[in-house]
Parts: sequence; structure tokens; C-alpha cells
Amino acid sequence: EEVNKLLELKKQLGDEGSKKFVLKTPKGTRDFAPGQMAIREGVFSKIIACFKRHGAETIDTPVFELKETLTGKYGEDSKLIYDLADQGGELLALRYDLTVPFARYLAMNKVSNIKRYHIAKVYRRDNPAMNRGRYREFYQCDFDIAGQYDLMLPDAECIKIVTEILSSLEIGDFVVKVNHRKLLDGMFAACGVPDDKFRPICSSVDKLDKTFWNDVRCEMVDEKGLDPKAADMIGEYVGFKGGIGQVNELLTDENLKAQKNALEGLEELKLLLTYCELYGVADKVCFDMSLARGLDYYTGVIYEAVLTGSTAQAVAQNTDEPVGVGSVAGGGRYDGLVGMFDSKGKKVPCVGVSIGIERLFSIMEAKAAAAEKKLRTTETEVYVIAAQKGMVEERLKLVSALWEADIKTEQSYKKNTKMLNEFQYCEQNGIPLALIIGQSEIENGVVKLKVMGSREEREVPRASMVEEIRTSLAALRSNGSEG
Amino acid sequence: EEVNKLLELKKQLGDEGSKKFVLKTPKGTRDFAPGQMAIREGVFSKIIACFKRHGAETIDTPVFELKETLTGKYGEDSKLIYDLADQGGELLALRYDLTVPFARYLAMNKVSNIKRYHIAKVYRRDNPAMNRGRYREFYQCDFDIAGQYDLMLPDAECIKIVTEILSSLEIGDFVVKVNHRKLLDGMFAACGVPDDKFRPICSSVDKLDKTFWNDVRCEMVDEKGLDPKAADMIGEYVGFKGGIGQVNELLTDENLKAQKNALEGLEELKLLLTYCELYGVADKVCFDMSLARGLDYYTGVIYEAVLTGSTAQAVAQNTDEPVGVGSVAGGGRYDGLVGMFDSKGKKVPCVGVSIGIERLFSIMEAKAAAAEKKLRTTETEVYVIAAQKGMVEERLKLVSALWEADIKTEQSYKKNTKMLNEFQYCEQNGIPLALIIGQSEIENGVVKLKVMGSREEREVPRASMVEEIRTSLAALRSNGSEG
Repeated sequence: EEVNKLLELKKQLGDEGSKKFVLKTPKGTRDFAPGQMAIREGVFSKIIACFKRHGAETIDTPVFELKETLTGKYGEDSKLIYDLADQGGELLALRYDLTVPFARYLAMNKVSNIKRYHIAKVYRRDNPAMNRGRYREFYQCDFDIAGQYDLMLPDAECIKIVTEILSSLEIGDFVVKVNHRKLLDGMFAACGVPDDKFRPICSSVDKLDKTFWNDVRCEMVDEKGLDPKAADMIGEYVGFKGGIGQVNELLTDENLKAQKNALEGLEELKLLLTYCELYGVADKVCFDMSLARGLDYYTGVIYEAVLTGSTAQAVAQNTDEPVGVGSVAGGGRYDGLVGMFDSKGKKVPCVGVSIGIERLFSIMEAKAAAAEKKLRTTETEVYVIAAQKGMVEERLKLVSALWEADIKTEQSYKKNTKMLNEFQYCEQNGIPLALIIGQSEIENGVVKLKVMGSREEREVPRASMVEEIRTSLAALRSNGSEG
Repeated sequence: EEVNKLLELKKQLGDEGSKKFVLKTPKGTRDFAPGQMAIREGVFSKIIACFKRHGAETIDTPVFELKETLTGKYGEDSKLIYDLADQGGELLALRYDLTVPFARYLAMNKVSNIKRYHIAKVYRRDNPAMNRGRYREFYQCDFDIAGQYDLMLPDAECIKIVTEILSSLEIGDFVVKVNHRKLLDGMFAACGVPDDKFRPICSSVDKLDKTFWNDVRCEMVDEKGLDPKAADMIGEYVGFKGGIGQVNELLTDENLKAQKNALEGLEELKLLLTYCELYGVADKVCFDMSLARGLDYYTGVIYEAVLTGSTAQAVAQNTDEPVGVGSVAGGGRYDGLVGMFDSKGKKVPCVGVSIGIERLFSIMEAKAAAAEKKLRTTETEVYVIAAQKGMVEERLKLVSALWEADIKTEQSYKKNTKMLNEFQYCEQNGIPLALIIGQSEIENGVVKLKVMGSREEREVPRASMVEEIRTSLAALRSNGSEG
């Protein structure tokens, strides 16, 4: 709104106005105000706690890469990459995701096994749909396990992590759909899809979460020239969903059994679902043959988490999308990507998950807006207030002593203040304690400590004020009336 | 080294090699490996703790801004701005610092007072001197107080914050030099410098920390056409340094007294030093007339912290720079910048400080390298180990129970492991506890808990293992033998 007003103002000003700045952030980007930052940091801290609980390290890479590092990794979407201007020197581009820089990092540093998370912004010149939490600059939040390990052990942990994170954020019910690229390829072969049509047909299947089967079938047959009989067979298979029972059922399917790929995929899925059961998350995981995932580089298990409960309903209403569309986490196994960066093609098997953090921000922001409680953007514990004018020097000594004791303390930057305004400031900002100093307090070597919530006020000796404040804060914390 | 080897390899491969990727990060940028991240996060957490202790909020802005937002803010240095390619749409550039985006944010959102910190990467196409911790992509770490307040109260708090942060990082002695732009301008006027030469001459004075007076004088007289008499007078004044005493001495200087600017600057410095004394940091603050600071937008107090102790010596040796060159923090008051973004020119007075975080990373990395103790890059508390083959299902159940209890737990991603290798892994990674499960433990409903440091091992009932682990961790923590 502000921006629009300014743009109008600029128009009215004509030539003179054109010298003024357009006050806006670039298309598809946004500032985070303190309230949004508080939510963002709350989400991050829960996610990072989970990553650390699973023993992950963290790394960081530059925001831009050599252009050629990104070339040939994203298929059609390469057109969405932000290039830097050629100002002499290397040709650079902003990173498009965190996975390709991760693979580059592993190859460059000859790292053959690591468990790491990386939370950072990535850039896509997409058409932003900001009401759906889609921006051109947005966070990705990736956890990956690289290394030559035994089947499904790292893969199952990624799914376990998704369930832990989504549960900790308390955003309602969800389901993690799982499938396998080898099973999809084997199924395509069994249906008579020619080899060179595997990826395009896979892309069509990927649209099934947003599109009816009939439309997807049309795309396969009319646009991509698939034999209608093959399409119909695919139509049967992509309806399969469930648990180990459904996997076992497909293991008896004569067409699939003839495909080595399909058998391998099914056996791996069976093992994955067994591990999920041991991890106590079987009820949150659902085998779903219609899950395809967009990216080309997946080679094994793939998965995607979608919300199913009342939060999903609310999100759908806010964004004009059908319920359950738009994943809140997704990932899979990609065993070939690192080899693309190695001069000898040495492979490092990887599996990972990306948390849909921007969508989670939107959900948490909506939740915060709906909640009664005011969100604090600072952690200030004590506000120091003067009872009379001319107390600035005393105040400086007091705040200094409190900072020294690691107590989060603020005071006014005005020399003389009105007590009533000061108390109001405390209330508005949720500061739990006020420390009051006046002439009589100085003479008696005391300060007044006021608990803002209860308005209870007591005199405490200056020598023991730090202790008294700590006691009060601990009491407030255990009452749950703070923050 | 790795990169060089690959580059050589590429050469040898000739044409075929030229199709391979060059495995490197762009010039002037670097990856952060887990060990560096651990140091970086340690530094950040101390700094953020200080900002929060002072009641600061945080904001974030996009990594790029409209090109015109940055235009005309950085003088000569504008040529160092990274532009994005024109791919249709807005002309964009990577942010050059966090101050201009902050001012844009305040004006755009009509914020007239805020106390915020912002830690984020900025971009300058400079000639990187990476051994001095200077990169093209680097972190800035800014704390600013915006608002119409009483003289020197926010300014003194910024200096207090610098001293708290540098003390908490334990990098030895330092001094915060302070000066005032109005005093400098008044002094230039008193010395007979023409108005239009104030800024260029100020830039020359700024070089005094790295250059001898004679060379600076040459630049003033020969390059910038200053009257030699004026230069000599400046030479006298810039030698002034000390405390309130020196400020008072200058307040009696007849030439300066005739300049309103100089008087105002001196009075403000006097008040600032008084407040610093009340904050208990007078011994760390030094009035220094040779401090000028590079940026044009300062309008009041300016300050800069430099190391003076043994750390400064070590840094100087590593970087081939003289001791005390290169500030570890700096800032000042800039009352006009926000007004440049407001359509009506409405001013929002600001004062802030930027922590030289990259230099601090370098120092902390050198300190960590010199220390005996191995740096941990994970926080894993327990490693679950099988005593025999075929225990993977039991292990999954155990780690699941520990994660559920929020205990940081890892296990091998191999199905069958050798105990000796597993213990070695714990030792190499500083994991304090191992939890061992075997056939006999399963039969007896127990697990073995081993304290890696003392090699003490005990059987605990499975039902109470979480409690036993917590007890052990608490004991290790109080012994200080953990991470």
C-alpha cells in the first residue's frame, strides 16, 4: 500500500518525482520485519534442534556460483537462474538450490561421507505467487546424508526427521508419501513406454497431485505421443497406494516382476517401510505410486510430505489452492549428482530432504496472527525507570550493572522521562520487570522492583538487586506468564 | 591445492578436459566447512547474546536491491557494486552493505524508531586479500539505534556494546578510538580548508592509520591542492589524543572556539566520554583526532575499535600488516541517510556500529588452530553400538527412543559393524557416551552404557536408560570433560 501511494505520488510529481527513489524491494522479494523474524527464528530453532539431535554438521557456500557449475543441472528450469552482469572476470549466477552447491562442495573437497544441514536463501526468476508463500528469493532448508552405506538406513532417517520436524511445529496432521524412481522406471517399461520417454512421462505423472488423471493422460498421449494403451496401464498403476501390503501385492504383479528395476524398487520400499515401522512413524508414511517428483537427478527412493488436517484446510483457503497441494517437505536419493562434478566421475551416493520452510513460515505467521497472545520481538527482562528528572547518571550505572550480570535490560534514550509512559512501554513490549530509581531510593541504598503482570512492587537492597531479579524471573518463568 | 591439482589435470586432458567443470568457488568467495561453521556460530551466538541483552530486535532484507536504491550512496566505491544481468524486468544489484538497505527499510515502512541488529552477507567486487580475512562475499554484523533521542545516550550504548562483544570473545586488549565529524569539519574550517575540500581532505586524514603524516601531507598539498600552511595546521591537530582532559584542552583553543561546529563536536564528545565513564568503559575509549572513517554519510560521533594486545601482534604477523591496522568494529552517527529515501526528506537520526566479523572469524580460527583441544562439529551425546551382527532392528528402536527423549544420538548407517571401529568413531568425534546392545542385553532387558572418557561401563535397565544417560551427561558437563 505504502509503495503504491509513493508510486502515485511519483507520477504526480512528474519530472521532479522521477529523480526520487522508487521505495520498494525487488519483485518477488520481501523484508522481514521484527515480528516475522521472531517467527522465522522460532521455526529455524526447532528444525536445527532436530538436525543436531541427529548428529548433523552444517556448512555454507557462496550465494553465487560459477555459471558453468549450475549449467545442465536443472533442465527446462535453467531459464529461471539469475545471472550476474558480466563486469569482467568470471561469469556468475545466483544459486538455484542448495543441492548442486552441496554436490560441488563434496567433489571439490573430496568429501566421501558427511551428514550436513544447510539453511540459506536461493534464487529463482519464477512468477512469484506471494500469497502462496512463493518468492523469487526464498529459504531452503536441506538435510543430506552422503556416503556409501547400507540400503535404506540413511533414507529412513530422512523420513524420520521430516516427521519429527512437522510434529514439533504443531501444524496438524500430515502424511509422507513415498515412492521409488526405479519402480517408476520399471513400471514405465512394463507398460511399454519407450526408454527415451521415461523422463517426460515421469513429468506428466508428477502433475497428478494438481491435475485429474484424464488431463494427465491427454498430455501423455496427445502432447508426448504415448501409445494410449500404455497410458491406460500407467493409469492403473498410479492409483496404487497404501503400506507394505500394497508393496507386497505389486511384488506378485507379473508385468512388474519381469522388470529388474521394478523389483529392486519394491524390495527397497519394503525395507524402507519396515524401518519406518521400527522408527514408529509407519502411520505417517504412505506408499503412493503417483508420486514422481520434478527433478531429474533422483535415482532411488523419493518422498514428499503434505498436510492433511485442519491447517491444510486453512492454507488452502488462504491461497486458493486445493487442500493437500504443495508439499511442506520433500526429497529423495540422488546417487549420480556428485559424480557430475568429479573429473573421474567418482560417485558419492546421497539422500536428502528439503524442508518447505517458506510455506511453514506462512503457516506459522497465520497461526500467530490468529492467536490472542502478542508476539514479543525482544527478550528484554528489565526496564530501568527514573522516578524523577536528572537521574540519567544513576540509570546508566544501574543498566551497566545489570548488563554485567547478563540480565537483558533496556532504558529510555531520553534524559528525562515520565513514569507513566515508561510503564506503558513495558506493558506494550511485554517486559516483565521494571526497576525504579529515585532520590529516596538512592539515599536508602535500595531500588524498587515492580512485577509488571501483578503490579506487585517491592524495595530491594541495591547490593542484592541482581539476585532478586533472577528470583523474580525464575518465578515468572515457572508460572509461564513470561514470553 | 585441490583446485590447483584439478586445474592442472584439466590442462593435461586438453580438449576433453575443457568439457569438465572448473571445480572452484567464485573469486573472493569461500565455502565454510563444518569446523569453520562451528567457530562462526560460536562468534555469532556471543554477539547476538549481547545484542539481545541490550533489547535489540532483528530484521532481514533481500540480498539484492533495486540498482537505484544503491546509486549515489557509496561515492567512488560504487564501481565495486555487483550488478545482476538485465534479464528483463528491474535492474538489480547485490547489497554493498547493510546500512543503505536499513535506511531504505525505515523510509519505506515509515519506521521512526527501532533498535535492531542485522547479520548478513554483503558483496564488493574488491581485490580480495583473503589472508587478511577480506573477501568479495563477507558478513556484516550491524547494530543500529534509530530515533529522535537525547544527545549521546544511544551513541554511548553503541560503544558499550563494542566493548562487551570484544571482551566476550577474549581476543585480548583493544581500544575504541572516538572522534566527531563536526569537530573535524570545524577543525578544517579553522585551518583554512575551503568548504568543497572538506570531504577529500577528510579522506586523506582517514589514511593516517596506515600511512605516515608526511605522505598524507603530500597527498593533501600535491594531489588535492591544499595550502601547505593549512596542511601543517591539520598536522598539529590530528596528533591530539587522550581522554576528557584533551577534549577540555581543545575547548580552550582559540581557533576552534571560533567554529560552531567544532564547539558542538567537542561538547558532544565530552558528554560521550562522561557516559562511557558511567558505563565503566572509559579505560577502553580514546579520543583520537586522527580518526576520520571513510564513509561520507557520518554526521556526528564516529568510532573504531582496534586490537592492541598480543592478538594484534599475531594478526599482524599472519597478514603482513602493521600492528593495530584494520579495525575490528566501527561506526558512528548518520542523521541524514534515511531522509535520502523519504519523498519529503523526513529525517530519522541513526547511530550504529558494525562488528568486523570476518576479521574476528580469522582470529578465532587461528586461536582454535593453536589450541590443543579438538573442535567438535556435532553435538552428538550418545552413539548406539551393536555387540553382534543382525542387531539393526534393535538399534533402530533404541535410537528412536533416545531421539524421542531429545537426546542427541547417532548410529552407523551400516547394517553390521565392528565394535572396535565404532568406539574409535566415538573417540574421533568426541562423542561422550556409547550405548551397547547385544543378544544377552536384550534377553536381560538391559543396555550397556559406556563413558568414553573414563572407559567406565555399566549395565542399566532399558526402562531407565534415558534417565541414566541424562545423569551421565550432567556429570560430564559439571566435570567440564565434555565438548
